[in-house]
Order: sequence, then structure tokens, then C-alpha cells
Amino acid sequence: MTKPPISRYPAPELRDLPDDIRERIAAVMEKSGFVPNVFLALARRPDEFRAFFAYHDALMEKPGGLSKAEREMIVVATSGVNNCTYCVVAHGAILRIRAKNPLIADQVAVNYRKADLAPRHKAMLDFAVKVAERSHTIEDKDYEELKRHGFSDDDAWDVVAIAALFAMSNRLANAFSIRPNDEFYLMGRETRG
Amino acid sequence: MTKPPISRYPAPELRDLPDDIRERIAAVMEKSGFVPNVFLALARRPDEFRAFFAYHDALMEKPGGLSKAEREMIVVATSGVNNCTYCVVAHGAILRIRAKNPLIADQVAVNYRKADLAPRHKAMLDFAVKVAERSHTIEDKDYEELKRHGFSDDDAWDVVAIAALFAMSNRLANAFSIRPNDEFYLMGRETRG
Amino acid sequence: MTKPPISRYPAPELRDLPDDIRERIAAVMEKSGFVPNVFLALARRPDEFRAFFAYHDALMEKPGGLSKAEREMIVVATSGVNNCTYCVVAHGAILRIRAKNPLIADQVAVNYRKADLAPRHKAMLDFAVKVAERSHTIEDKDYEELKRHGFSDDDAWDVVAIAALFAMSNRLANAFSIRPNDEFYLMGRETRG
Amino acid sequence: MTKPPISRYPAPELRDLPDDIRERIAAVMEKSGFVPNVFLALARRPDEFRAFFAYHDALMEKPGGLSKAEREMIVVATSGVNNCTYCVVAHGAILRIRAKNPLIADQVAVNYRKADLAPRHKAMLDFAVKVAERSHTIEDKDYEELKRHGFSDDDAWDVVAIAALFAMSNRLANAFSIRPNDEFYLMGRETRG
Amino acid sequence: MTKPPISRYPAPELRDLPDDIRERIAAVMEKSGFVPNVFLALARRPDEFRAFFAYHDALMEKPGGLSKAEREMIVVATSGVNNCTYCVVAHGAILRIRAKNPLIADQVAVNYRKADLAPRHKAMLDFAVKVAERSHTIEDKDYEELKRHGFSDDDAWDVVAIAALFAMSNRLANAFSIRPNDEFYLMGRETRG
Amino acid sequence: MTKPPISRYPAPELRDLPDDIRERIAAVMEKSGFVPNVFLALARRPDEFRAFFAYHDALMEKPGGLSKAEREMIVVATSGVNNCTYCVVAHGAILRIRAKNPLIADQVAVNYRKADLAPRHKAMLDFAVKVAERSHTIEDKDYEELKRHGFSDDDAWDVVAIAALFAMSNRLANAFSIRPNDEFYLMGRETRG
Repeated sequence: MTKPPISRYPAPELRDLPDDIRERIAAVMEKSGFVPNVFLALARRPDEFRAFFAYHDALMEKPGGLSKAEREMIVVATSGVNNCTYCVVAHGAILRIRAKNPLIADQVAVNYRKADLAPRHKAMLDFAVKVAERSHTIEDKDYEELKRHGFSDDDAWDVVAIAALFAMSNRLANAFSIRPNDEFYLMGRETRG
Repeated sequence: MTKPPISRYPAPELRDLPDDIRERIAAVMEKSGFVPNVFLALARRPDEFRAFFAYHDALMEKPGGLSKAEREMIVVATSGVNNCTYCVVAHGAILRIRAKNPLIADQVAVNYRKADLAPRHKAMLDFAVKVAERSHTIEDKDYEELKRHGFSDDDAWDVVAIAALFAMSNRLANAFSIRPNDEFYLMGRETRG
Repeated sequence: MTKPPISRYPAPELRDLPDDIRERIAAVMEKSGFVPNVFLALARRPDEFRAFFAYHDALMEKPGGLSKAEREMIVVATSGVNNCTYCVVAHGAILRIRAKNPLIADQVAVNYRKADLAPRHKAMLDFAVKVAERSHTIEDKDYEELKRHGFSDDDAWDVVAIAALFAMSNRLANAFSIRPNDEFYLMGRETRG
Repeated sequence: MTKPPISRYPAPELRDLPDDIRERIAAVMEKSGFVPNVFLALARRPDEFRAFFAYHDALMEKPGGLSKAEREMIVVATSGVNNCTYCVVAHGAILRIRAKNPLIADQVAVNYRKADLAPRHKAMLDFAVKVAERSHTIEDKDYEELKRHGFSDDDAWDVVAIAALFAMSNRLANAFSIRPNDEFYLMGRETRG
Repeated sequence: MTKPPISRYPAPELRDLPDDIRERIAAVMEKSGFVPNVFLALARRPDEFRAFFAYHDALMEKPGGLSKAEREMIVVATSGVNNCTYCVVAHGAILRIRAKNPLIADQVAVNYRKADLAPRHKAMLDFAVKVAERSHTIEDKDYEELKRHGFSDDDAWDVVAIAALFAMSNRLANAFSIRPNDEFYLMGRETRG
Repeated sequence: MTKPPISRYPAPELRDLPDDIRERIAAVMEKSGFVPNVFLALARRPDEFRAFFAYHDALMEKPGGLSKAEREMIVVATSGVNNCTYCVVAHGAILRIRAKNPLIADQVAVNYRKADLAPRHKAMLDFAVKVAERSHTIEDKDYEELKRHGFSDDDAWDVVAIAALFAMSNRLANAFSIRPNDEFYLMGRETRG
């Protein structure tokens, strides 16, 4: 059986890419052992690639009030709501690893309300999913509820911004039919110690 | 960390159950190596337990025009639409095993339209998901489309009945908060040969 | 004018049916004076017929905390939400009879919130309709609200299970186009004493 | 048991009403044997009463391309979609009488797609329900489909205008909780000859 | 470039209209300097024209508890929800003039929750939009919330009736594709003093 | 009356900002005569600011198959669907200027289907709005329809990417309550020559 294409748009050849993009792709290959398809799919447009990953890194990789596992929970929950296979599968893998929990990603993707989560995390995902689905109705009460669970103003900004970034990312991956790499499905599924 | 309960309603003690139900549970334990929580959760009501599994077996286990993997695809796709964690996780495992495909369940649960599926299976899931979401609008054209993909009248009945059975099952599992057993998450995820 | 068919699938001949099914149909004919079309429509599949009516009887006919009229209210309200003509018309008739109230079924089918109902019954239908429409969002607060209106844990189970059974039943009747018998429309409409 | 009030707003005393309104109410009492509650509920505001019934009569009573039964089908189908108990019950009665068909109103109110209707009437209700639910998406194709079923431009205007008038009427009756008179429920339910 | 037609239905010639309608149109021309297209579009049906404007005047022009600007806010907010270009543009102009505020109409049309409005006006529009979108769920609590913001029973009636009238009006303008006159777009946009 | 704040989060002082950001803000001030509030609101997070405007410029300012007016149409239509006041008002102004058309922005924001647009532009907005609302259902047919109206593969990428970028942008502006500057409302409204 032929492997399905990585996306509706053909991936560019690595040798045709600008140096900085080829280096970024080499670095992720080095670190993960494979190149996640979103890198190849978006490399077709170097300027958009650079902006996308700059945004991604600013929100997902920098130090901050939210743990990296919490940020990935937001990604997986909102990507589930948006029915984005690429983001649920790829970020589900990252969430399992960052939370050191092999069950959490599937639970959060299908229905975070029934997941094994602390009340703080359900409140965080209530807010994030509201940003994803009906951001025009976000109001003071929503922020107050976050604050009641110990989130600062800067944490609230991060919840909004991550949900918003993946509103974009989910639409790109869905409309371009970006296919998750096979490697993601099994990552982080080893039993808890 | 304490394990969360298997459901909002406490499971009955095995020794308090009628013989036929205890035997059914012993048989599934024997076969799978663990007892899926839905058996314990529903055993609280023996008559409903019997009817539920009689219905389940009539649709999911008997010989018929749809393969067992196809039936599980219908379960996973409609359970995804209904945000039912128990059914997505448990039947996702069964689908991976029956389809001998470690990737298919996550793809079908999140968005079957982008899954690695033949056109016949997309047509089957278009129909099943329409039964799940807007059955009052099912019309002749929907049946004709199934027929065009090689489904017989009896196959169409099966698609309807499986989608309908899991409309029930998803609501029970959601409203009772039935928790999927940890064992399901990793089943059938070994790499394809 | 020719009578429209009872369903998209032809009904089997009574003489071709297994004895237990033919007897069940004869019994309902004896009791009601006609055979509700759902019996003939589902008899095409004897094992499914048996499971369906076993489930139905376990929830709708056995003694329990909910009165029989209350159970029918749940059926009619959720079937209205699912736009199921068969179930609204057939169970509307049963509700009128069991509640000894000629007005209640039409009120509950169109909008239970404006029906002549006690607060206890509105709370029951709020819960049931939430199970029908968004079961993945059912939470502790919903159960507490039921309890506040005097429903026990077992009553709550019944509300869930009846709403879930008719989620299935409505999808079968809608997708198979099961037609309500003419007899139902007028049953129980005599003026209150 | 006390009779529930006819509406959230108290009805004015007949003797306090302007002559023309009192006469209109007397005329309907004379003709029907009772005063439909919408007359009493809206009489609180004489100018609005006059405009409402002038609009109603212009669309529902005048000669025109649509039969009176067809007009009532539009009212019942769109009022079902809007969950308006008053209009479904009151106009359901009128539809049964005008169509000389005791079954049609309940069928059209719950799901016109499965009702015993000619294709011409299903096309008419497809259009009317689209006006009720998503009028901003009405396009040339919708008008062409009506034309294909023999409706003139003026008939199409009538379908739009009746669906629009009852979009208003349903919201008034819902928000004011106007209660249908008991008399409506049984009208026109005698068996077909 | 040819000017697009004022509506899907051709406007009648002024000279063919009944005197009272021609006079009403002349009066609005005199007052506004142009004839809003809704007058020409609806004049095709004189009786409906008369009823429509009688209703409109009874709710929008008479003295009452709601200021004229408040009434226009209701029109603009609900017309935004119904995606009605004619009503948003035409009544947006009137709102700007009556509120003496060049910004308010665009804010209210897109998302009144984020508009520069007093809490009283947000409560009024919460209620009005609920009438527009889900009138069957309006309940006592909604009326109490209005009362808490100083609205009387008669004010509440007006909010309902205006939202209901424009539920009709929006559907007529959408389905007939009534085009807003170019003049409306710039009216009332001069800077606040 | 005090001016409402530009956003839920206080804007940083210009003097506290990194040089590149202060320069970007000075440049836009120079060009437009005022600083659009989104610049001040996002400057609170310099890295996110840089990524946001890099993405924006890559899609909205570079040469390409879509005209600048076409790109703004996509922004305004999808921002209308997402009820984002900031983006509808600010990009509505830019659309009026780029399209040299004082009417188009309000039409596209409320209901592009009824706007004065060529069929090519309606097809473009059908696609863009589908990306905004249900990107998981985008399929080959949607791309083919675009192609039929003369859009290349790269044009289709741009439509997707602009709709996706503003899915993010709308959520940021909505959740942060970014207020459109007063200046935008009147820009580009001068009559066509």
C-alpha cells in the first residue's frame, strides 16, 4: 500500500528551502528522530513558516506560569473541538510525554469534562474551549473563574493565546489535510511507573 | 494516587449478581484478561444488562454483510461525534485489532473525513454520522448513496442499527461517567507488519 | 388513496416469524386492538426485536420510583427534540392515557418548558433533554438539581436510561421511516372529567 | 385544579376594549364557540392587535395561489421548528379542518419530511423552514426549486411572508407564554370518511 | 456599472399604487430625501404594506417606556443575529441619529456584548437576542433580570414585540433580497461633539 | 464621558517597548495618523507581537494572486461570522479603501451572500467562511469550486491561510476586548466618484 501524501499540497524538496528553514527541520529531525509533517507542509511558504513557528515557540516553549503539560492540554482539548486530526495526534503525543501520563491525551481530546483532571485544569479547559467555540461571549465572569483557580492575568493571556493559535493551526491542518506522522500514535503510551 | 471510580454509580459486588451475569463477566475476563468497566457499571440493573448485551451481540458479533472492523468504525465515528470517552477508547482498541491497523481508530474518532479510508468506508460513515446527528433528515438519497458503494438493504439496516445502539450507549456512558479501563489505551497499537 | 407503507423496509409475514415474536405481537393486538407498526418493522430482525422489547419492558413497564406517566413524559419530550414522528405520536397516546390528561402530550412534545407541569416534572425533563442533546456535558450539578426535586439515585438512573433508549429508538424510527398507526392519534383525547 | 392563566400578561377586560376589537372578538366567539387566547392576550395593545390581525388576514384569509390548507401547513411546520406550543396546537386544529385530514397536523409539526405529503408540499415546506431557520442563505436555487413544483412568483412571496409572519407570532406566543385553549386539541380529529 | 435591483421582486410603479400608500411614500421621501427600498419592495402588496407599517409605527414611533434609541438598538442587535443586511444598514443609520452616537450601530450589529453600552442596555439586548434566537426558552428569570435593570412590564412587552417584529422583517428582507439604499451607509457618522 | 480602555489588558508604555516594536508603531502612526489599538494591545508581549505582524504581513501585504481588496474581503467576512468587532471595524475601513467602495464592508460583514459581489468573490467567501466555521469538512469539491472560478492552487492556499490567521486574530481581539479606534468607522465612506 502506498503511503498517503503528507498534505494536499506537495512538500518542497529540502534542498530548495532557505537555510534557516532547512536547519530548523534538521534540528527537529535530530531531536525527534523524524520530521513532523507540519514542518514540511508549511515550508512551502518560508515567511509563513517562520512566523508560524516563532508564534508557536513564543507560546509553547518559553518559561511562564503555565506548565508545558498544561499548554498541551489546551492544544489537545481545543483541537478535539475543532476535529483536527493532525493536532490531536501530534500534540496528544507531546501531552502524554510532558504530563508523563499515557491516558490523558485521549481523554482530553474526546471530552475533557470526563477526564482524570484536577478542578484547576477543568476550569482552564472550560475557558480555552469557550475561546475556541464562542470567543465573542467571553466576559468578566470567565476571567474571574480562572482567577479563582489560581491563574494570574498573564496565565489567562496564555490560555487565550494558545487557544487562538490553534484555532489557526487546526484550520490550516484541516483545510490542507496535513497527515500526522505514524510515529506520533505510539509515543508516550508506556505504562505509568 | 487513588484510582478514579469506574462510574458515578457504584459497581455491584460480583457475588451479589445473578449467575448468568456473573458468568458473562467471567467469560469476558477469561477472554480479555480484564473486565471492561461497562459490564460492571451496567450489572447494577440485571434486566437492562441482559437486554443491552443481547442487542450488542446481535449487531456486533453475528455474521453479516458488514465486516467486524466496519462495524467498529461506525461505533468509533459516532462515539467521537457524541464525545463519549468510554466508547471511543474501548471500541477504538477493538477497531485497531479487528482492522489490524494501529492508526485507524484515532483518525476515525477525531475526523473520519480525513482518515486513511476507502471511499466505501467514507460513504458508510457519512450515513452513520447523519443517523447519529440528524436522523430526522435521512432520506432516499442517503440510502441510494450507500447502495452506490455496494451496500445491500440489510447492510444499510446494520449501519442504522449500530449508529442507533451507540446513540444509546454513548448517552449511558456519558451520563453515568463510565471510565474506560486503562488496558484499552495501548491495545492494538503495535506497528503494522 | 393507498395507505403509505409502515416503514422503508417491508414487514415480514406473521407466519414467517418465530413463535415467541408472533405471540408477543398477538398479545399486543389482543390488548390494544391493533399492532403498533414498530412491532412489525422490527420483527424483520428477531434477535434485535427481542433485545429491543426486553430493554423497553425493563425500563417502561417494571415497578419503580418513576410513575408510568413520568416515564412517558421523558419519551415524548426527548422524541420531540429528536423530531421522531413515530415516537411522539405513539407515546403521546400512551402518555395521555397514563397521565389521564388529554392535553399533556402535545404540550410536552412541542415545548415542555411551557407545558402545564409541576416544577418536579420540568426538572426531570430538563435533565432528560440534556441527556438527549448534550450528554457529554452532564455533570454533578445536574444530578443535584434532580435530587433537590425529590428524585433518588435510582430515579436518576431511570431518567438517563429512558432518554438513552429513545435516543436509539428515535433513530431507528426516523431512519427506517416507521409510520405511526392511525389509531394512536385519537387515543386518550376524551375531555378530562 | 385552577386553570393556568392565558398568558404571562393579564388579559384586559372585554368591556375596557375599543369597540372594533371587542367586535372582532365577538365575531370569532360567534364563529368558533370560544375565543382563542391570542385574541385576548394581544388585546392589551389595541394598535398592535389591529396590525397583527390585519397582517394575518391579508396572508391567511384572502384568495390566492396557495390553498388555505397549504398556508396552514406552512404555519404548523415553522411553528414546530420554533417550538411554539400555542401556534402548533391552534393552527394544527385549523390545518386538520382545512385539509380534512386528522393526521396531518401532528405529522407536519414533528417532522414534515416524514409526513404523508405530496412532493409539491415537501418542497414548499423545505423552503418555508429555510426561511424560518436560515433566511440569510435563501438563494436563487431555492426559488427555482419552488418553481419546478409549480409555484408562481406570487406563491413564493406568500410562502416567505407566512413563514415570516409566524416567526413573529411564535416569538410573541413563546415569550408571553400564551396558552392554547383546551378546545383546539380535539378539533378536526374525527376519522376520515 | 448598473445599479443592482432593489429586491428580487420588481417594485411597482408609484402611479399604480393606492393613494394612501403613494402618500405614505411621498411623506417619507419628503422627510428623508429618498425612499427607503423597503417601502417600494413591500408596496407590491398593499394590504401587507399597510399592516407592516401599522405594526412598525405602533412599536417604533409611539411614546413609551423605551427611548427611540433603545428601540433601534434592539432592531440592530437582532438584525445582526439574523444576518439581515437591509435592517442592519437602514436601522443602523437611524440608531446613530437617535443615539447621537456615530459608533454605536456597528458595535451593536457585530457584537453588542463588547459595545460601549450601559449594563441596562446589555441586559435589554441579552433579552432581545434570546427572543430572536431561542424564544421557547424565555422564562421567569429572564423577565426578572430585565426588571432588576429598571424595565417595567410594559417595557418588557416592547422588547419582546420589537424583537419579534424584526424576526419577521429580517426574514422578508433576506428572502426578498431587499437592498439597502446607498444613502443609509453614511448617515449619522459625523463625529460626536 | 471617559473613553473606554483599549483592551482588557493595559497597554504598555511606548517608552518601555523594545526598539523594533516602538519603530513599527511609529511607522504605522506616521502612515495612518493614529495607532490602531491592536498594536498597543499586543505589544504587551513583544515576541508574540513580532510573530503576529510577521504572519499578517506575509499574508496581507506581499504581492500575490489575490488582490489586496480580495484579502480584506476574506478578513471582513470571516470576522463577521466570528462576531469580532475590532476586526470588522478596522478591516472594514481598509476594505472600503482598497476596494474603493464605501458600501462593500458593511455588506460583507453582515451577509456576504447578499452583497454586491461578482460570483468569483462569492465563491471565494463561501470557501473562506467554510474554513472559519467547519474546516474539518473542507473537501476536494470545495477546492474544485474555487478552481472553477479561476483561483490557482496558491490562491486557494492564501484563502485558507487568511481565514485561519483571522480565526486566531478574532479570538484574541474578542477575548481581550480590543476596542476599535474611533477613526476607523468613517474611513473610506466618501461617495464613489
